[in-house]
This record gives sequence, C-alpha cells and structure tokens, in this order.
Amino acid sequence: MTERSRTTDRHYERAFVRSFFTSPTAVDEDDSAKMLRRAAALRGMEAPDVWVPDNEDATAPSMRDEGVENIREVVAEHGGDFPGEIHPRVVWHRDDPATRYEGFQQMLAITDPDAGAVEHIDGFVIPEVGDVDDWKKADEALQRVETEHGLDPGSLSMSVIVESGEAELAMGDLRTEMGKPSNTLERLFLLVDGEVDYTKDMRAMTPTGELPAWPELRHNTSRGASAAGLIAVDGPYDDIRDVAGYRERMRENRAKGMTGIWALTPNQVVESNTAPLPPKTGRWLLHAGGRDIDLDREDDRHVYRGDAADLDALGDDRYRLRLGDDERELEAEELREALVDATSYVPSMTDIVDSMEEFEAAKENGRGAIAMTQSATLDIDGVTVDVEADRMWDEATYQAAKTPITLFQDVYAHRPDQREAFAERYGEAVVERATEVGDT
Amino acid sequence: MTERSRTTDRHYERAFVRSFFTSPTAVDEDDSAKMLRRAAALRGMEAPDVWVPDNEDATAPSMRDEGVENIREVVAEHGGDFPGEIHPRVVWHRDDPATRYEGFQQMLAITDPDAGAVEHIDGFVIPEVGDVDDWKKADEALQRVETEHGLDPGSLSMSVIVESGEAELAMGDLRTEMGKPSNTLERLFLLVDGEVDYTKDMRAMTPTGELPAWPELRHNTSRGASAAGLIAVDGPYDDIRDVAGYRERMRENRAKGMTGIWALTPNQVVESNTAPLPPKTGRWLLHAGGRDIDLDREDDRHVYRGDAADLDALGDDRYRLRLGDDERELEAEELREALVDATSYVPSMTDIVDSMEEFEAAKENGRGAIAMTQSATLDIDGVTVDVEADRMWDEATYQAAKTPITLFQDVYAHRPDQREAFAERYGEAVVERATEVGDT
Amino acid sequence: MTERSRTTDRHYERAFVRSFFTSPTAVDEDDSAKMLRRAAALRGMEAPDVWVPDNEDATAPSMRDEGVENIREVVAEHGGDFPGEIHPRVVWHRDDPATRYEGFQQMLAITDPDAGAVEHIDGFVIPEVGDVDDWKKADEALQRVETEHGLDPGSLSMSVIVESGEAELAMGDLRTEMGKPSNTLERLFLLVDGEVDYTKDMRAMTPTGELPAWPELRHNTSRGASAAGLIAVDGPYDDIRDVAGYRERMRENRAKGMTGIWALTPNQVVESNTAPLPPKTGRWLLHAGGRDIDLDREDDRHVYRGDAADLDALGDDRYRLRLGDDERELEAEELREALVDATSYVPSMTDIVDSMEEFEAAKENGRGAIAMTQSATLDIDGVTVDVEADRMWDEATYQAAKTPITLFQDVYAHRPDQREAFAERYGEAVVERATEVGDT
Repeated sequence: MTERSRTTDRHYERAFVRSFFTSPTAVDEDDSAKMLRRAAALRGMEAPDVWVPDNEDATAPSMRDEGVENIREVVAEHGGDFPGEIHPRVVWHRDDPATRYEGFQQMLAITDPDAGAVEHIDGFVIPEVGDVDDWKKADEALQRVETEHGLDPGSLSMSVIVESGEAELAMGDLRTEMGKPSNTLERLFLLVDGEVDYTKDMRAMTPTGELPAWPELRHNTSRGASAAGLIAVDGPYDDIRDVAGYRERMRENRAKGMTGIWALTPNQVVESNTAPLPPKTGRWLLHAGGRDIDLDREDDRHVYRGDAADLDALGDDRYRLRLGDDERELEAEELREALVDATSYVPSMTDIVDSMEEFEAAKENGRGAIAMTQSATLDIDGVTVDVEADRMWDEATYQAAKTPITLFQDVYAHRPDQREAFAERYGEAVVERATEVGDT
Repeated sequence: MTERSRTTDRHYERAFVRSFFTSPTAVDEDDSAKMLRRAAALRGMEAPDVWVPDNEDATAPSMRDEGVENIREVVAEHGGDFPGEIHPRVVWHRDDPATRYEGFQQMLAITDPDAGAVEHIDGFVIPEVGDVDDWKKADEALQRVETEHGLDPGSLSMSVIVESGEAELAMGDLRTEMGKPSNTLERLFLLVDGEVDYTKDMRAMTPTGELPAWPELRHNTSRGASAAGLIAVDGPYDDIRDVAGYRERMRENRAKGMTGIWALTPNQVVESNTAPLPPKTGRWLLHAGGRDIDLDREDDRHVYRGDAADLDALGDDRYRLRLGDDERELEAEELREALVDATSYVPSMTDIVDSMEEFEAAKENGRGAIAMTQSATLDIDGVTVDVEADRMWDEATYQAAKTPITLFQDVYAHRPDQREAFAERYGEAVVERATEVGDT
Repeated sequence: MTERSRTTDRHYERAFVRSFFTSPTAVDEDDSAKMLRRAAALRGMEAPDVWVPDNEDATAPSMRDEGVENIREVVAEHGGDFPGEIHPRVVWHRDDPATRYEGFQQMLAITDPDAGAVEHIDGFVIPEVGDVDDWKKADEALQRVETEHGLDPGSLSMSVIVESGEAELAMGDLRTEMGKPSNTLERLFLLVDGEVDYTKDMRAMTPTGELPAWPELRHNTSRGASAAGLIAVDGPYDDIRDVAGYRERMRENRAKGMTGIWALTPNQVVESNTAPLPPKTGRWLLHAGGRDIDLDREDDRHVYRGDAADLDALGDDRYRLRLGDDERELEAEELREALVDATSYVPSMTDIVDSMEEFEAAKENGRGAIAMTQSATLDIDGVTVDVEADRMWDEATYQAAKTPITLFQDVYAHRPDQREAFAERYGEAVVERATEVGDT
C-alpha cells in the first residue's frame, strides 16, 4: 500500500540539483546552434546537473523556430553522452493563450520521436506560470504531448519558473493539488525562482536597478519544494564576474534549504557544482565586531593578524583580549573559554565522515548521544592558545549533519563524470568512506 | 471575451498610489472641520494621491457623528477641486457587529446624494478587517449603500487596513475570492498595512516600545496586491521629524514592490510623492565596510574623503586601495576593475529615459541586447580614476527598468497639478520624453 | 450568542506561555525517573509555565515504555504541587502510522485514571505533525483517549511541534479548520517551532552546522497563533552557556509576537520567565555606528565612555558631536535635538504603569491623546547634556504599550509561586499597581 499522503516522496531519481544552466537555442551566427553544441560538450565539474536549452528569454523571438530545430538536432546527436539531465525551456504565459499554445507546439516538435531527441529529454521548463490552475494547463499540454507521441504517461517532467506573485502563492497549494486524480502534477521536478520578471511583476524598484534580495520568495520556494517533494533552485546571478557574491548568495540559499542555483556560464556551473559540497579542509572562524572572519592555516596553527581583534600576553598568566569593541583582561583559563565562545569550526568532508562514523559506532553500542571534540591552536597577534570545543551529537544532530553527505552521495551516484574530480579533491579513501557512511 | 482569470488586471485608473494622507474629521476647536478644510486645500506636491478623511482612529469616538457631517460638507464644497482621490475611513471591526453596523451607517450618510459629496467620493477605507468572509461583509455593506442611493454597482471602491494575522492570511486568498459571482470584491483598491494595531494583535513587544519592522507582513501585502491587481501601501511612520528614516523605510518598501506609504503631515506627503520618482541627477555609490556611501559631485568628479576607504598613488603606476578592512596594492588596470566592482550608479530620470530610448532603437533594428556604458571620474583622497561600467540590457532588463517610468507616466496623467513641479525638477524636455518613452 | 467566527478567542486560561521546559522521561541510572523528579520539584522562577515530560527525542527509544511508567508515577505523586502546566510529549510522525499508533498508546497509558496522573495532565505535545489532516488524526487520537477514560471532551489540550514545511503551511489553514464540526481542534494550545528537525526536513545546510535563523518560519508560527487564538513558542537554543545569545533570540522573538521559548535547563527557564517582563529600572540607548548602545547609570546620569561616539565642549556654547562616522559642530540647542534623535528609552515596569495610569486619567477627563515626557541627563565623555523626549500617547499607543502589562497580569494570576520574586524585583507597591492598571 502506498498512501500518497503518507510521505513527502521525491518522484525523481535525483534528490538534489546543484546547477541549472541555460543556453540560447539559436544565435545569429553561421552555426546558429553554436551555443547548444558548446554546452552539450561540457563534462565533469563544468557540466550542470540540469541543462536547459532555453527557447524563451535567452533566444530572440524571431529565432525560436530555428531554436526548436537546433534542440532536436543537437540533443539527438549529443544528448546520449551528456552527463546531466536535459530540460528545454519553452515559451508560456499565464496571461496569454497564444503563448501557451506556442509552448505546446514547441514541446510537441522537440519530442517528436522521428527527431531522435526525445529519449534524451528528461522534461520541460515552463516559465511565467500563474495560479495552480495555470500549472495544470501546462500539465495538460504535457499529457497531450505524451499521448500524441505514445510516450509513457508522466515520463516528461515539468519544472516551473516562479516569477509572479500568483505562482509564489500557488506553491502553498501544490501538496494538496498534486494528490488530485484529475491532474498529473506528480511530474513536477524543479521550482526555480526568476527574480528578474518577479521584480517586474511586483513592480519593485531599487535605486541602482539591481535586483532586490527577495528573502521571503526564496523561503517560500524552498518550503514549497520541501512540502511537495520537489527541488528548489534560485534564479540567475547576473554579475558573472562577482564570484564572491555568487558564493555568498549560494551560502544564504543553502541556509534556506535551497541547494540549486541558475548558472549563466561554465564558470558559474563549476562554482554551483562545488559550493554545496563539504570543503576539502576544515577551517576556524573568529566572531569579532559582528562578523565571521576566516582564520588562515599556517602549519598546525589558525592565525589572525587583522584589526578586528587583538590579543596581548601581559605576563603572570594574564592576557588582554579585544574582539571588536569588547576588551577584557583574562586569565589563561578564562581566555580559553572566551575564545571557544568566539570561534566556530567549519568541518571538512573528512571531519563530517569521521563524526558520522563515530556516532554510528556509538549507536550500535547502545549510546544515544556522544560528545565530539574539536581542538585547535589559535594564533592571534603571535600569541598562541589551545582551544577545545565539545559538541553533543544525538540522533537529531546526526540526521541534520547528514544533509551534505546525502547530497554528496546523490551527486556521486548520478554524476560518474565528476568522480575523478572528487577523488582529486578529497582523496579516494575519504570519497569511498563518504559514499558508505549513513546507511545504518 | 474577457476571461477574468486570464490577466491580473488593475481595476482602477491609477496604477500607483504614492501617498495616503489621513485627516481627523472633527477636532475640538471652534471649527471642528478645520483639519479637513486645511487638507482639502492642499495642491501640487503637498496634495496626496489618496486623501483619507479619517473618521476612525484619528477622530475621538465622541466626535465621529460630527465627523460624518464635516466630511459631507467639506467634500461637497471642495472635493471637486481636490487633485487626488478621496477615500474616507469609517469604523469597522471583524469582531464586533455593532461597530460594523456603525460603519455602514457612516458610509450611508456620507454618500447621501442630498449632501452633494458622493460625486467626489472615490471609495471607502475599511479598518480592522479579518478573514475574507469579513471583507465580504464590508463589500455587502457597500452594495447596500450603492443600492440605497442608486449609485452604479461597484462605483465605490474599497480599501482595507491589514492589521491582524487573519487579514494577512486573507491576502493569500483574494485572487481566488475576487472571481466569485457572489461578491463584488473587484471593487478592492488599496491594501494598507496598519502596523500599530497589527503589533497589538500579534502581541509583539520591543524594549523601547517602537514598532517592529514586520518585513514579512510587508512582503505578503505587496505580493497580495500584485496577485490581485491591487496597490500596496505601508502604514504610518510615527516619527514625523525623522525624514531620513522615512526615506529609508520607503526605499525598503519599494524593493518589496510596495510603492505607497501613509503620510501624517503635508511634509510627509511631499516626501512620499517625491521619493519613488527617479532623481534629477545621477550619483555614484561606493561599497566599503559593508555600506553604500554616496559620493559627492564636484564638477565632473565624484568625490570621497571619508574614513571608510583610502587610495594612495605609490608611483610607477601602482596604487594602494583600502575599502573597509580590505587593503590591496594594485596596478592601474586592476585598480580600475576593483573600483568598477566597488561602485554602482544611481541613474537619473534623464539616464533612464536615454537608456530606454537607446534600447528601443536597437530593438527596432533587430538587436535584442545592447551594452549600456556608464563612465565617471572618481576622486578618492585626491587620487582620480576614470571608470567605465557596462551593463547588458535585454528585454527583461528593459521591462524591469521601466517601472519608475511607468510610475512617472501614471502620476503625470493623474496629477496635472504636479506637472509644474516636475518641469521645474527635471526640465520640460526630459519630462516630455519621459511621458513618451516605452510605448513600443 | 457566541458566534465562533466573531472573535479570535483564546480557549485556555493562560493567555501567555513564557517557558516550555522538556525533561527526559527515563534515563539510564538507578532511578530512571531522576530527571522527572528533579523537574517536578522546581518552583518559582525556575519552574516553567509549561513542563514537558519528553517521551520523544529527549528519551532513548528503548527507554520510552519505562518513560510512560515514570510519567504516570511522578505526575501522580508531584503533579498536584507543580506550579506550571504539565504537557507530556509522546511520539508521532506524519509519515508513519506505526509511530502514530504508538503515540496513541502512550497517551492512553499516561491518562489511565487508575494511575492517578491524569488529573494533573493539561494536555499533550505532538511532534512531527504534517498537513492539517495529520493534526486531525492527533485530535482523533485524543478524542479516543477521552472517550476510553470517560474524560470531558476537549479537556486534554493539544500542542504541536512545527518541524516540517507541511506543518508550516498548515498553520495558514488552522483558523478555518478549527471551526469545522468534524474535529475538535479547538483543543489546540501551543504552536512550537522545532528548528532542528525543520532544518533537516528543509535539507538546509550551514558551514558550521549551526541552525539557520528561520525568521520566516517564526513569523508564520506567530501569525498562525495570533489568527487561531493560540500561543507561539520558539524551539530549543542549544548553546546553553550562551546566555547573551539566548536573550537576544528572545528579544527578536518578542518583536515577532512570539513570547515563549523552549528551555533546556532550569537556568534557561529562569531566563525565559524573566526576559519578557518589563525591566526593574529604565535605561537609555544611544544609536551610534549602526548599533544601539546601553548607557550606564551613574547616580542620576546616563554615561557613555566608549569609542562609538565623542562629545567635546568647544566653549561659547558650541559642541562637537561624533556618532559613528558622523561628526558635526552644534550649538547647545542643536546638540540637545541631535541627542534626542540619537537616543531612546527602555521604560521600566514603573514607567509603564505610570504612563498607563496617566493616560487612563486623561481619558476619564475626556482627553484622547496626551504627551508623555521622558527626561534625563546624558554624560558623554564627561560632557553632560539634559535631554527631554516627548511621545504622544493615544488609544492605539496605550493598547500597544499594554501588552507587557497584560502579560505580567496573566503571569501574576497563574503563577502565585513567582509573586514573591516579583515583589522582590519590582517592589510590592509597583506590583500591586501593575496588577490593577488597564482595566478601564
């Protein structure tokens, strides 16, 4: 018995999508399929989890018929070797039946068995959706496509771009609507935010014209995905030279449960494929002056030389510590405590695997909670201090810590082309342990 | 055929409301209508887009009968010349039928054709609404008023004050409920946040008693307005001397798509009428130490002399640049790049009109994307650097950039009394171009 | 006539819950009920408003049968003397019928009249709930328990832990669902956030493994509680040594209308019982450099000596004031104004009672608004300045300011064991006035 409401199942093999990479389907050059061909050749860390031949905004309206032909040709030829999933974006608009009909025709043409592309097409991306009733129209268009071409019902997935207030509200109803017998919305796969058009739809304005951060939209998208067993993806980050900004945005997104992000270039693909995975080496953070500062590793010490904190040894086992505006005189033991409070540790892949294995062993021996200890030598202004931080791990901590490992295992299973890069980054031994931990 | 669900239509002539100005309807002075008369005489930038003779919280309960008489008299006499819309606020409460009945009677009296005010009344503001079912009661009260006085059905608009958790939730259902044949909620116009009573209803507390910022409420109001074709307005900003704080609040609101704000004084009306429009002159911002700093214009240079950044010429084409805590030695070309990354430009009305015209011309020539270049001479600590920033404009950029111009055109059309002020501020040539751009 | 939809009634005697304290029901020691016995003996500020014998995550799965026995025994023996309410947590899971059935059996055993505990059990805490339909299953389990044991229908309350996206969404429907005749969800009492499992369910990740702040979840929980007449409680704060962090989290929560918080230790109970009540003495805040700084009281002056602000007397009635980056030369009167703008006052219990009494007296004399004045001598870098701040109080200000007093009165009524602590803290005279003010 599988009671549909019992579990928030994910209906797709992949449980995570890190990167969503769009390519124009037709450009004004000798080979109008040039960008598609280039994208289809990407491999390893440069290849996205989801590749989106974009027959909507990235392609001029006058080129979109040619775009359909290019998708058919390039996907037929190269789709079988492409390491990620392939989800073309077609045109669609909640307010315009002509655009919706055009989108239907594009999907019909792309999936024509005679073209040979359909076996490599995992689904379609539908932009500009509105209320759930509009999502159902897209679902019905896909049902017709499947019927016309004799494809298995539900074999084409559907991902949507959330770029209107209506669509944001619709995500609150998905879980209920997906259970209804009169639709096949179980085909839903990705909920992708589209902040450019969302900003337009909300009529929002910023002084410089840069996009608002829309934290509530991202929360609601992530929650909608979680409640309906789907995957949340953030929209494009326009400033493709600003790698630090892109990483910071991804860090914010992951804290919201939104693991995936749009990528506009192969470089952004590399960044988005890498960022959600645990780092190769752990590092310490010092909290001072309202910020988290990365400490530099020098040999076995974690070093800070900047202006946000000072540490002086006053002799007689006494120290003066300044963190931001806060200055105190402390004895050695108090200093250690103050620094434990003012630091935190970013665990490496190895650290996470170690901790999980240790907890699993303890659990097998009937212990429900154990203390994990992290120790380090900090060096602030040349004064060194040994600190040790304990953290209690119980089942809930273990489950929460598992998310990056579950992600890694999902990636490892579905992206064999990236295994070499992982072995290089983490070492083969750790990769092997990481793929095995957590099955208890 | 107009399929109601097809488009998120706005049902009112005005697509934007910048200012929502309340006046007590009766005060304890010789002329109890003094505040109404004073407000009715406002013109130009001091006159609000929506004027609200407030027969609820701004007027003592014992004075509200007299308030109704004053509204009838003052609006009959001066309403025809008032440049904004007129929406009296009456009493109402989701939890109290007696208050609701009193609100109904106030609306009935104010719109009595014999009083001569009704032809200048655009609608009513209903405070303290609850669930959508409560909104429907207010709608029904307005239907009765229209029936009793033989007014066109739906001719009186309805705006609500969102000041309870129930009302916040109701905004998620509006789009669906407005389509139902058993109500005329299509008369809805403004969704106005009321943070004082909302704070009370949520039983929130702050140490100093100042109001919480309620970012999620403002997002949900803006989204509700966007999804239902309505206009979002923020609540009162109590500290009427704090102009900088009021402007900052409006800046935050616009980034949420909430263009309108309550105004308590004619000075706040001027601020709220002005703030959403593009500035007369552009300016550069420098990002340093986690803040955006306005650069001062001196001749053709944009100058910074403060402590958040330093720039030294070291000779031999080398420079030392410090932005906040981050100090680097750079060559001339690297310096230019670093400053492009660390600056952004706030375009003027002229800049926006120029860019839009340029993009429209390119589009007519079949080009879907063009680079817009912004160049400037920065002067930091007396060292000058020429920088140039490119931005790609495509259709989506163009559409998003259009919002302030669409707003300006809406204001220009509906507020002829402010045209002189605009001509003075921007120059007549730019105003004329701004009213014409964007029709392609 | 009590029309259910008329008012957002609270269905419980207590209108506020400050502290929600969990204890393991069975630990691996000679007396497995040791932690329960210890908790049952808490009194005064160390005793929580709601005590939760936790037969779910705090207790090892293998110990939970013994946990049920321990609850029966300890609550039967000590429940009558315990000053707070008692709400055991049982197991439950939206996705697993076996766990739900186990939770039903635990509730059945705990409330068995033969055990003698049921008369002291106020209700149950249900973790891991999902959609509203899942909440209804828990309600039905409680109906069966009441039927089986002949308890009054609805006499056992139900509190839930919100730790999934589904449950977060469900809070938007509660108000409507609670009105339906086919359930008795009116028994709902607390909505408690559970951020550890919520983070897991949302698959969110942070670099250090610390929990995301989830501001939107907390807003939605507080709003859901407000709209349905329930009480919102935040989840556990793991770092039990970080008292400052716990207080800051509670301050944030109160600004969201979430007054209660989980407590893991008697020390956290003291903090959570104390923090929402007005302070014993008022204090001034100085806004400088983007922060609010507490001024130290020395005699009748409020003193600042730190680096965020400077004040120099230049002679001739002129001063130089620096606040963060902003430095200005001012005359005495301008200085006073600048400092009024840059300061705010955190009122004490006495201040709040004084202001409310003053406003009530004014209202009796027919005045709807009065100015409250707060004056102080500030001392910045040894230069003293007398400042006076006026604030207008009208009915809305009065109602909003009342929340901490309403809270105090609720606590005073339901926690006689804390009255002595209040008398010591505030003085008996103020406590007496505080219990009487606000009845007008």
